[in-house]
Amino acid sequence: MVATENGQTKKALSPEEQHPRKAFGWAVSDASGILSPFPFSRRNNGDDDVTIKILYCGICHSDLHTAKNDWSNTMYPVVPGHEIVGTITEVGQNVRKFKVGNKVGVGCMVNSCHSCHSCKQEFENYCPGVKWAYNSIDVDGTKTYGGYSNMIVVKENFVIAFPDNMPLDKGAPLLCAGITVYSPMKYHGLNEPGKHLGVVGLGGLGHVAVKFGKAFGMKVTVISSSPHKEKEAIERLGADAFLVSSDPIQMQAAMGTMDGIVNTVSAAHAIMPLAFLLKTNGKMIMVGAPDKPLQLPVFCLIFGGKSLAGSCIGGIKDTQEMIDFAAKHNITADIELISMDYVNKAMERLAKADVKYRFVIDIGNTLKAA
Amino acid sequence: MVATENGQTKKALSPEEQHPRKAFGWAVSDASGILSPFPFSRRNNGDDDVTIKILYCGICHSDLHTAKNDWSNTMYPVVPGHEIVGTITEVGQNVRKFKVGNKVGVGCMVNSCHSCHSCKQEFENYCPGVKWAYNSIDVDGTKTYGGYSNMIVVKENFVIAFPDNMPLDKGAPLLCAGITVYSPMKYHGLNEPGKHLGVVGLGGLGHVAVKFGKAFGMKVTVISSSPHKEKEAIERLGADAFLVSSDPIQMQAAMGTMDGIVNTVSAAHAIMPLAFLLKTNGKMIMVGAPDKPLQLPVFCLIFGGKSLAGSCIGGIKDTQEMIDFAAKHNITADIELISMDYVNKAMERLAKADVKYRFVIDIGNTLKAA
Repeated sequence: MVATENGQTKKALSPEEQHPRKAFGWAVSDASGILSPFPFSRRNNGDDDVTIKILYCGICHSDLHTAKNDWSNTMYPVVPGHEIVGTITEVGQNVRKFKVGNKVGVGCMVNSCHSCHSCKQEFENYCPGVKWAYNSIDVDGTKTYGGYSNMIVVKENFVIAFPDNMPLDKGAPLLCAGITVYSPMKYHGLNEPGKHLGVVGLGGLGHVAVKFGKAFGMKVTVISSSPHKEKEAIERLGADAFLVSSDPIQMQAAMGTMDGIVNTVSAAHAIMPLAFLLKTNGKMIMVGAPDKPLQLPVFCLIFGGKSLAGSCIGGIKDTQEMIDFAAKHNITADIELISMDYVNKAMERLAKADVKYRFVIDIGNTLKAA
Repeated sequence: MVATENGQTKKALSPEEQHPRKAFGWAVSDASGILSPFPFSRRNNGDDDVTIKILYCGICHSDLHTAKNDWSNTMYPVVPGHEIVGTITEVGQNVRKFKVGNKVGVGCMVNSCHSCHSCKQEFENYCPGVKWAYNSIDVDGTKTYGGYSNMIVVKENFVIAFPDNMPLDKGAPLLCAGITVYSPMKYHGLNEPGKHLGVVGLGGLGHVAVKFGKAFGMKVTVISSSPHKEKEAIERLGADAFLVSSDPIQMQAAMGTMDGIVNTVSAAHAIMPLAFLLKTNGKMIMVGAPDKPLQLPVFCLIFGGKSLAGSCIGGIKDTQEMIDFAAKHNITADIELISMDYVNKAMERLAKADVKYRFVIDIGNTLKAA
């Protein structure tokens, strides 16, 4: 029996009653971070829900951090995955936007409060009550499980329609990596033709930022500590220029030339030489979160009226807009498609940044119930 | 003889020819920072110039830093002062905005290049070729001297018209302290009725920020490490609320409530507890420049899409707008009017923050030629 708000009691639902639908995925059970097959269950499809047969799921660095409890907040067992795509197999009676058979995606969020300052601004990603796709406690008090699994039940408001021409596998990472760079670029006006964008770091986030920058009609310069990435940045990804961050002559020559920078680096690094690249009133968007505080000489922001702006993914409306924009401009992530049973090896390689640029698990063809 | 651009040579002007007008002020001659009477000279009034009889000059903390060579860039002897007001005594033949007898002000800048990215955006304050009111090398190669002096010759484009109802003495500090907070508040949208503004630090900049915030129709909360400033902040300056920054309970209760913060503190301090006060997409404007780098845990910006924005004074157009707005809303600085020969004592007291809130020198009545 559990107490309710009006002081009455009601019978607590058993796990089977709360989550009667059998599901199957891969989970991590301890800080070893090792994934293994995991049978579990999900809730019935409610009136506002859709049920999705998962076909692909991208592997985000957050999955690895959570698997290893790097942020000290992992509730084991955890089924990671928040770059989820598939087809709808069931819709609730209130669902208006989707039909059975639709190709859809689910990103980092599966619910929010809908009433706070952030939700009202359509930044559900900053809602204090946001429910993440995995490792979160949902409104019914049960734990959320992510996309390394065969199916998921989600409120339709948190489901993204995939345009017909958007490939499901290469589109999956856009649901996290894509919106993480698109949302702040839009919010801070770094989506205007003719502007000059710097992209610091050429990984899962950075390579997508280059593509969006070019699609917005911007000049794009990649700034990297790795000189060997120049050819890749310019010839394959279409960047206009490349700066080696450790080369003071190159950095000096580019001072004051950039309207904005998307900084994707999550290792400790020096902010000041990057701030010097910005024009007056330029903005550096921080989407990588170094473990330790960065050293910030404030005068490098004061002279020139420059800003450092943090950003974390983006709202649902912007995510849909981002996917539609990406489809129109043929933007996808560069991926390495893997089978489910390669996931532990993929995590090892991800820890060494040995992937161009995102692993995506072929859930539909390779996830097999035990 | 000096070389010119076309390879010809011409006779170098003697100091008397370059600067034939006798002037008199107080200067610092070494890193002791002690000011003493100083006869010098200024240029003739050019076609685009106005000559100003100086009546009042505010004392900015920058004057003290420069006097003591804290920034290792002082060119002694230096005549400080960039909160200059007075009346026009002469106008050049191209001058259109001013007439003899007009009440005017001159702030931190006396010239800029007029052609760079910053100048074109009317942020001359960020022009790489900006000429400061003192301790700068002017376009003619001579050193600029500031407002602790009896007169100054300035390009009309860098002169601010004082509305009739703006007191000259209490208006002087607005030319630096006022524009320093007004410009970023305007640029970052922290000038809208109903928004909630935090002001960190209640000194020369902070007390003016409170007044502008209230005049914009905002809710204003002062955040200070000094509990004894509460009465002053609320009862005399009109702030709506007061937070003691070292009180975790007060700070916790105010989390996520502010649209923006003007941070005027130039001592080392923790950024994170202040960032937590901001709403989603909130902005903290940094107008104080601590000597040493601040520690910036980036995640405190990432969660909530928050920004740290540096800002340094403001452009000429905004300075005129600020003075006009201040006059309309009866905003002036709170000052302690001093005589010229009190200036060394005033500098001592300023170093201890022993002033409410700005010293202003009564140049017109107390500066006497030796």
